[in-house]
Amino acid sequence: MRQNLRLTIEYDGTNYHGWQRQKNASTVQGTIEAAIEKMTEQSVTVIGSGRTDAGVHAQNQIAHFSIDSKLTSEIFKKGLNSLVPADIVIKDCQAVDDSFHARYDVSSKVYNYHILNRPFPTALFRHYAWHIKKELDLNTMREAMLHLKGTHDFSAFEATGSHRSNPVRNVMNVSLHTKGSSGHLVFSIEANGFLRCMVRNIVGTLVDIGLGKTSPTDFCDILHSKNRTQAGATAPSQGLFLKEVKYEGGNI
Amino acid sequence: MRQNLRLTIEYDGTNYHGWQRQKNASTVQGTIEAAIEKMTEQSVTVIGSGRTDAGVHAQNQIAHFSIDSKLTSEIFKKGLNSLVPADIVIKDCQAVDDSFHARYDVSSKVYNYHILNRPFPTALFRHYAWHIKKELDLNTMREAMLHLKGTHDFSAFEATGSHRSNPVRNVMNVSLHTKGSSGHLVFSIEANGFLRCMVRNIVGTLVDIGLGKTSPTDFCDILHSKNRTQAGATAPSQGLFLKEVKYEGGNI
Repeated sequence: MRQNLRLTIEYDGTNYHGWQRQKNASTVQGTIEAAIEKMTEQSVTVIGSGRTDAGVHAQNQIAHFSIDSKLTSEIFKKGLNSLVPADIVIKDCQAVDDSFHARYDVSSKVYNYHILNRPFPTALFRHYAWHIKKELDLNTMREAMLHLKGTHDFSAFEATGSHRSNPVRNVMNVSLHTKGSSGHLVFSIEANGFLRCMVRNIVGTLVDIGLGKTSPTDFCDILHSKNRTQAGATAPSQGLFLKEVKYEGGNI
Repeated sequence: MRQNLRLTIEYDGTNYHGWQRQKNASTVQGTIEAAIEKMTEQSVTVIGSGRTDAGVHAQNQIAHFSIDSKLTSEIFKKGLNSLVPADIVIKDCQAVDDSFHARYDVSSKVYNYHILNRPFPTALFRHYAWHIKKELDLNTMREAMLHLKGTHDFSAFEATGSHRSNPVRNVMNVSLHTKGSSGHLVFSIEANGFLRCMVRNIVGTLVDIGLGKTSPTDFCDILHSKNRTQAGATAPSQGLFLKEVKYEGGNI
């Protein structure tokens, strides 16, 4: 029986070379594909909503695969969870319409970036946040962030060496909020798509603004320059989380 | 110059055999003592507010050590942080009065225990929470918890094989709250002292109540039985955090 199965996946990216399958390197996609092959003796491709880089985490990565099998989606969920390491969890597995495609059908994605802004580093969140020692000015960061909203050519925030036909993306939502009282900041961004390293390059530049190295007006100029060399450094991968992937007509 | 230095320490207990120095095993106390020895060529004992077991974490463990050194507390803080691994952070180091003793002077301690109550396990918090699959009844757990408040003989919740002269402790505060919307629960308890494994044995028993295996009245009977065999299983170490240590006249 041909089935199209949709996975919701949480993973701790610390020990992976990112989502995408690679020869001679452990990746999330490769690990899940190997588990499916162990269960079914079939070699399948698991298509994710998009790649995440080495060290980047996901609360809700979405992927799908098509397979000829009598196993139910519930059996797949239990079986895969018993085969993959504890740093990958299949939160949900559902049979979906043949036409569902985890990448092509995405309407938007939400990424969160976690910063720990306090004088001393963190032992407990060292794999899950970027430690910034000096106090950040959140108001100027928020002022700059407003320039991101709407449809823009985001070339200034694309990883150098990336070649895409179309660097235009639509940013629907952007926010920066504090969590608790211990300097924990969460930057959140929703867009219809992201260029390679776009969130981390935006965060690196926003942190320069929070530190007073760049002004919110400069940020607007950087965006419009479409020139990567104008923007700040790339924020480290461990602070980045793929929080949610949205699809037309809801998430299922 | 003889100095008495007070440390505030955050640690991720995942890779340690607990706080207390052991031969042939990596511990938090042993790691900090080795770093002090590397800085000063002096062998000192770092006295913690109390032990934590293997796998248990701390946001704010307090410790002190006495040393003959001209180095300032700020130099000690920087030096120790550069010498200990990233899963230990010296958040603060202060010169204190000679009379300060990190264990004897404790007025109370706060422990938090994190539970993830949802059908699927967690990849991201696997080292920082106990995953309980079935839905817990928080109201009956809260009803039972009230029996903990006040001064009691807590022998029923002491690790078997422990021998203390006095198993009576005073529990000042106890709470159970939800954090966010994803099944994250935090049990918090403040007492003037804790018996070995007391928090984890209480949590194990409270989870039995949340699952309907034991009633809140039973919980009261278990406490008064002073008999460890009456209580539930010990909750796993990875959910436990030493949150705060309080001292007479404030925390400094």
